[in-house]
Parts: sequence; C-alpha cells; structure tokens
Amino acid sequence: MKKLLLLFVATSWSIGSFAQNDSLLFRKVSDEILLRSPCYENLRVLCKQIGNRLSGTKAAAKAVDWGFDAMKAAGADKVWLQPVDVPHWVRGKESLMLRLDAKKDYETVPMLSLGNSQGTDGKVMEGSILMVNNFDEFNKLSKEEVKGRIVFFNHRFPQELVNTFEGYGSAGAYRWTGPNLASAKGASAVIIRSVSTGVDDFPHTGSMRYADTVKPIPALAIGNFSADRLEAACKKGETKAKIQSQCRMVDTVKSFNVIGEIKGSEHPDQIIVVGGHLDSWDVGEGANDDGTGCVQSIEVIRAIKDLKIQPKRTVRAVLFMNEENGLRGGLAYNDSAKANKERHIIAIETDAGGFSPRGIGLEMDAAKAQYLRGFRKLFLPYGVYDFEHDEGGADISPLHREGVPVAGLMPDPQRYFDLHHTPNDVFENVNHRELKLGAVILTQFVCLLSEYGLK
Amino acid sequence: MKKLLLLFVATSWSIGSFAQNDSLLFRKVSDEILLRSPCYENLRVLCKQIGNRLSGTKAAAKAVDWGFDAMKAAGADKVWLQPVDVPHWVRGKESLMLRLDAKKDYETVPMLSLGNSQGTDGKVMEGSILMVNNFDEFNKLSKEEVKGRIVFFNHRFPQELVNTFEGYGSAGAYRWTGPNLASAKGASAVIIRSVSTGVDDFPHTGSMRYADTVKPIPALAIGNFSADRLEAACKKGETKAKIQSQCRMVDTVKSFNVIGEIKGSEHPDQIIVVGGHLDSWDVGEGANDDGTGCVQSIEVIRAIKDLKIQPKRTVRAVLFMNEENGLRGGLAYNDSAKANKERHIIAIETDAGGFSPRGIGLEMDAAKAQYLRGFRKLFLPYGVYDFEHDEGGADISPLHREGVPVAGLMPDPQRYFDLHHTPNDVFENVNHRELKLGAVILTQFVCLLSEYGLK
Repeated sequence: MKKLLLLFVATSWSIGSFAQNDSLLFRKVSDEILLRSPCYENLRVLCKQIGNRLSGTKAAAKAVDWGFDAMKAAGADKVWLQPVDVPHWVRGKESLMLRLDAKKDYETVPMLSLGNSQGTDGKVMEGSILMVNNFDEFNKLSKEEVKGRIVFFNHRFPQELVNTFEGYGSAGAYRWTGPNLASAKGASAVIIRSVSTGVDDFPHTGSMRYADTVKPIPALAIGNFSADRLEAACKKGETKAKIQSQCRMVDTVKSFNVIGEIKGSEHPDQIIVVGGHLDSWDVGEGANDDGTGCVQSIEVIRAIKDLKIQPKRTVRAVLFMNEENGLRGGLAYNDSAKANKERHIIAIETDAGGFSPRGIGLEMDAAKAQYLRGFRKLFLPYGVYDFEHDEGGADISPLHREGVPVAGLMPDPQRYFDLHHTPNDVFENVNHRELKLGAVILTQFVCLLSEYGLK
Repeated sequence: MKKLLLLFVATSWSIGSFAQNDSLLFRKVSDEILLRSPCYENLRVLCKQIGNRLSGTKAAAKAVDWGFDAMKAAGADKVWLQPVDVPHWVRGKESLMLRLDAKKDYETVPMLSLGNSQGTDGKVMEGSILMVNNFDEFNKLSKEEVKGRIVFFNHRFPQELVNTFEGYGSAGAYRWTGPNLASAKGASAVIIRSVSTGVDDFPHTGSMRYADTVKPIPALAIGNFSADRLEAACKKGETKAKIQSQCRMVDTVKSFNVIGEIKGSEHPDQIIVVGGHLDSWDVGEGANDDGTGCVQSIEVIRAIKDLKIQPKRTVRAVLFMNEENGLRGGLAYNDSAKANKERHIIAIETDAGGFSPRGIGLEMDAAKAQYLRGFRKLFLPYGVYDFEHDEGGADISPLHREGVPVAGLMPDPQRYFDLHHTPNDVFENVNHRELKLGAVILTQFVCLLSEYGLK
C-alpha cells in the first residue's frame, strides 16, 4: 500500500505541478515563436548587413550596436553594454601553392590561416612537406626529421560518430596544439587537414595559440578535397608548398558584451543567463556560429515580453564578445558577476548551430540534472528527448568554474562541422523553422527555470 | 515472486536476445554506412546526370536504367524490372501575370501549374480574382458569385505544427480538391497559395485530379511571397490575372519499378520490402522527393551484402515508379504480389526527405507495433526515438490495404515542405551525413526484421 501511495503522489505531482499549466505554457511559447518570431529576419540583417565580425573589427563594433538595438526592440527591461578588451587579429592576403608532383607546376589551393597564427610577413616560404596522419606518428619522428619541413597533419574528422561534437576534441587538437608540437621539433610551418566533416574543399579556420616556449610558425588549414590530393601525392613522392601570408596579431581593442534583462518578480537576485556569441570568424557570415545563438537568445526575451509572462526570477540574454579567439567576453562577464556578488542559478548557451533541437546538455551536479530530467516529457512533443549529455558552452565555462550549473542547447549535429569556420557558414544554410524551434526550446526551458528555480 | 521472475525473464530476454549481438550489429551497420557508403555519390549522379524525371519522360526511362545498374552494383542477388503503365503529363510553356492594382500594369509572377491539370491550350485566359482563405469561406459563396472568376485559395500551411507532416493533409486539400470545388461552382481557373512552409517565392507543384463530374479548369500554384502580395492586393480592391499554359495529359507510357533482392536463407518466402520512388516532379532534381529514398533503399542492399550479413528472410529494395501522379508503381507491385501469392511480412517506405532520422512510423496492428517498440533502445544511440506515429508511405499503401504491416522512416520534418515539389529540391539541399544516417536506420531495421520476423 505504501508503494502504491508513493506512486500516486509521484504521478499527481507530475501532472498537477507541471503537466497541465506548463504544457499549456509550452504550447503558447511554441505558437508565439513559430508564428510570429522575428528571429530569422534578425539573423538576415546580422548576416547580410553586417556579415562576419571578428573581434576588434569595425564589423564587430557594428554588431554590438545591432545587438543593443535588437535587445531593445525585443522589449528587455534594461539593456547595457559590458566592456571587454579583445585581441585584434588580422588575416591580410594569403595563399598556398602546392607542387603535388615533381614533374608538375605549383598550383594554388584554397586555404585559410588558422586564427591567431602568424604569417610569413608577406614573403614566400617554400619547403618540402612531411605528412603525418596523427600525433602518434608525429611523436615517433626525431627533430632532425622534422627540422625545416612543412608538417602536414592529415587527421580526418571521425565520420563514424553519430554525434559529431564528440569528434571535435580529437580532431580540433591538431589545430590547437599541432602547430606547437611541430614548432618544438623545428618545423617551418604547419598545414592541417581542416577540422571538417564536409565533402567539399572549404578550408576551416579556427583558433590556435602559440605556447610561450615555441617559435611561432605559420599554420593553415586546407579543405578535405585538397587534403585528399595532398595525401595521395605525399604517398607517391616528394611534395612541396609555397606559403605566403600576412596574418598577425595587431593589438587589443575595446569592445563589449551586450546584455538584456527582464527583472524577476519574486526572486530578482536569482539570475538565469541564456546566451550565444556575437563575434565570428572573418570568413562567411557567422550564421550558424553563432548568429543563430544570438538571435535565439534575443528571442527568449521577446517571446517572454510579448506573451506577457512575468518571470519570477531574473532572465538575462547575453551576447558574448570574443568567443572565437580569446573568450574575453565570457571571462569579463564572470568577473563582473563575481565583483557584483550576483547569484546565477544557471547559465545556458546556444552555440551549436541553428539546427533542429534534439536535447539539452546538463553540466551540473547529478541531483540538479536529475531534477531537470523530470521535465523531459514536456519537451518531447517539441522533438527534444536527450538530456543525457553534459554539454554547456565556452562562454559560460568561466561561470561554471565558479560553481554555476550550466546547460547547452543540443541541435541536430550532422551539418555543423561541414560549415563551422568556413566561407560557407552563411544565412542560406540556416532554415527558418529549425532556427525558431531552437528558440522555442530555450524559451520553454528558461520559463521552467524562472518558475521553479533549480533545486 | 512470480512478478520478480517475470521481470527477470523480460530483462534477460531484452539483454540476451538483442542488446548484445544486435547492438554490435547496429554499430557495424552504422560504421559501414557512415564511413563507406556510396549513396551520396549515387544521389549526385541521379540528380545531376539525370535530373528531374516525371513519369513517362525520357529522364524517367534513364532513371530506370540507372536504378537497375545501381542495384546491380550494390550486389543484389537478383535485379529485375517490373512493368508499369504510367500517365504522361507535360507542362509546356506557362505563365501567370497579375494586376495587383487597377492603376498598375500586369506583372509576371513565378508559378507552376498543378500536376495532371489542364492548361489554357496556350491561349491567354484573363479574369478577375476571387480570394478565399479556406473551404468554409468558399462554401458560403453562391454559384453566381464564383462563376467566371479565378478562385484564389489563400490557405496557409500551418507553421505552428512541430511535425509539418501533420499539416500536409489540411493544406494539400486545397491542391487536391480545390480545383474541383471551384469548377463545380463555375470558376474559370484556380490559383492556390503553394502547399509550402517556405519563406520564399518558390511555387510548389504537386498532384491534383479532376473529378469526373466537373469541367477541367486550369489550376496553378504561386509561392508564399507572391501569395502575400496577392492577398494584400485582394483586400484592397479588384485584382486580375492572365494565365497562359500548355499543360495537358498526353498518353500512357510503358515504364517500370526497379527491384533488387537478397534471398532469405531460412525463410525465403517471407519478404521485407524497403523502398522509395524513382519518379519526381518535372522541376528541380527530385533530390529529397525522392532521390534520397531511392539511394537509401539501394544502400540497404549494399550494406547487407558488403557486411556479409546473410538475412534469414528475403530483403527487397523497390524503386517505385509514378508515386507523384498516379501511384501506378505501388499498385502494380501489389498486383504482382497478389498474383504470385507472395507473403510480405512488412513494407517500409522512405519518402519524407533525406534529413536526420528521428523515428519510424508504424502502421500495423497494435501488438506488432508494440513488439517493434521493444527494440527502441537499440535505435536511441542513432538519434531515433519516436515510434509513436502511424506513418507508412504512399507506394506501400496498396500492400497495406491487403493487410501487410507498413512502416515509414521519419526524418526531421522542418525542411521538407520548403523544398517539396519545387525547383529548389536539388542535390545541394541534401546533407551527406543526414542522408547516410537515414540509410543506417533503414538497414538496422531491416536486419532486425530479417532476423526476428514480425510476430
């Protein structure tokens, strides 16, 4: 009998406490956004009128103004700019020529220098290519074998993974630390096979950082088709490259995070953050990385205001600056939160593309994650079923290190690493319904948290 | 004690019977297809070398040859062509001009005649437009009000639905039966707002059929942007249209279904069908509708053969002809199955686009559906969680009417009705990983069914 009673209580809680009111609220939020959201049009403006917006550029400054205005238009009670000093890296002109066969001429190949890397000061650097398929192979090489060579890290993104994000760590390591390892053994430059799932020849840029202990050497990426050809050529015989690039770190520039807030009616001191990042790489339009996250975060504010929902807890949408090559926005936000002794009950990031949402990653203690999984059934009609991953986001990682529970929207992961950091990350590769559904899920999740808190 | 024992048996069955061997098999299938499938390249050839392929056209005949060769290359034990007589409808030249304002000139607007509809014999038909938002509004109109007018059915696809397929019935009715209702009240022609979720101006064609009791009148679709403008104009004052079109039904043509088979080792008489349709509308490239279904069905055969899996039951991949404007392939397949007294244990269709798979629709008696839901956990790591819908497919509906259980692959539904039946349904709008994941799920499902049957 005891067991039966327990079962009854559990069931009646699950129906009484959320399944009725909350499922109605979820429906209202979904209808509002799917039928009336301006977020797709907002994204068009950001992508087409401002375009790519690397930290420190004029476009990034324009994006700050755009974000401020969009947050105001969304109806936030208060909108402000939070100062952030950001690095300013410039690409300049660049080119790569490969000689795939000793009998043939050099040919120009699509390439992108890795972000933050140093170029050749505009001079032509010529050298012979040394291909390795992975770090294991590289580690077996002596300094003599590497010295003066252009190391080609030919690591392929693991296509067999259903969740591509699980492959970003292993593939991204060649971009992050490959140049340092190569430089430490005396390489003159590094070419990597792009961190890319694409069946195409788009090179993917992305962040690298020189260790203090190594000499900075030029580092660049080539697309999968070119990498296939270079691989085949390296297997046959000697290949050579000519690299010419002007990229360099210039200076530090004043920039801003953009913050919009709705004050909580009952617990204004309890803050819920939802955010994406405003900066992008300097190619394409920063559409899925992370224009979509920005307009979705703004949409959370708009939908709550236009639906006249009065959140009990404070809801803040944050457009972080400099996620791509410094994380200064995320760090500055956290510094400010500490200085002002703010209490964040959760921070949620949307920086995995504007694709159909499938899950919410929960990076927090087990009890809190389990509590949130209790709301799973509410999300199922909206296609969100996966609450088993511990994914947050880069911008909110400084908050998380201070103990703040974090969560991340998990969209369908199949297309992200085709587009990520390429000239192909453009507005046209975002679908209006997928984008809006992501905003639906974020708004629903924020509404739940503002109603019930996070126990 | 009895209960505990039952629990134990159920658990040990679920682990012993499938969770070990079958999850290993699922992984093998997934790795094989994600790493080595030629299905994306197959789709490129179908879309780019053959292109759109309406029943009865030369392109459709080429597609039959392509399908035969692809099925052979996949390693099917036996490949054959099954004769089908199909209708041959031709579009010819067509145009629509609208005068949105009495003070302004006519302007040309993108349009597509509805499939199977009759044109104006190439002559200009001019008339005034009568807008109705839905059938309710139309039904209130008298014959006098409708007579001689060009009826504009301005019904919007219901964007608030998370599963867009749930809106196809209500929106598609304006295409299927709108022209008949309008003709019965004496309308001279019909324009419909396309059955479209798109934020664009692509017109969507698609099938209509004149009732025997009405006079065939020209029927065409316009895209959402043009429909928005026409709607605004109709609200303001009189609008007029000039329609000129040559479309007509020509004759009946001999064509074929393409069938590839792997004979079952233990129960060769038990047949599992997996299929899509080879024909497409005469615009775009028939990529998501249904080139993707064709190459996925062929891939089921290829993966099983290359993995050296010996299915216990017979597996048949079928490329049906004439799904779009007659269903003759599905009918012919069923006729043949009846004539040969074949026993189909299930038929599975993939005709909802090459997007990330999310579920498998089960249209069969409750006990069988429940039995298949027992395998749900095996599919979860591949992103397939939804087994609650009763979706099959058009081509296999004749089999279903004979009592055969049917199932349908359910990919993410957000993009399908943006592209469906438009010039924009092209290869570029298919992602290689999403396409392959769909083939993974189909192959896994077919392997389960060939191993365990359908009780």
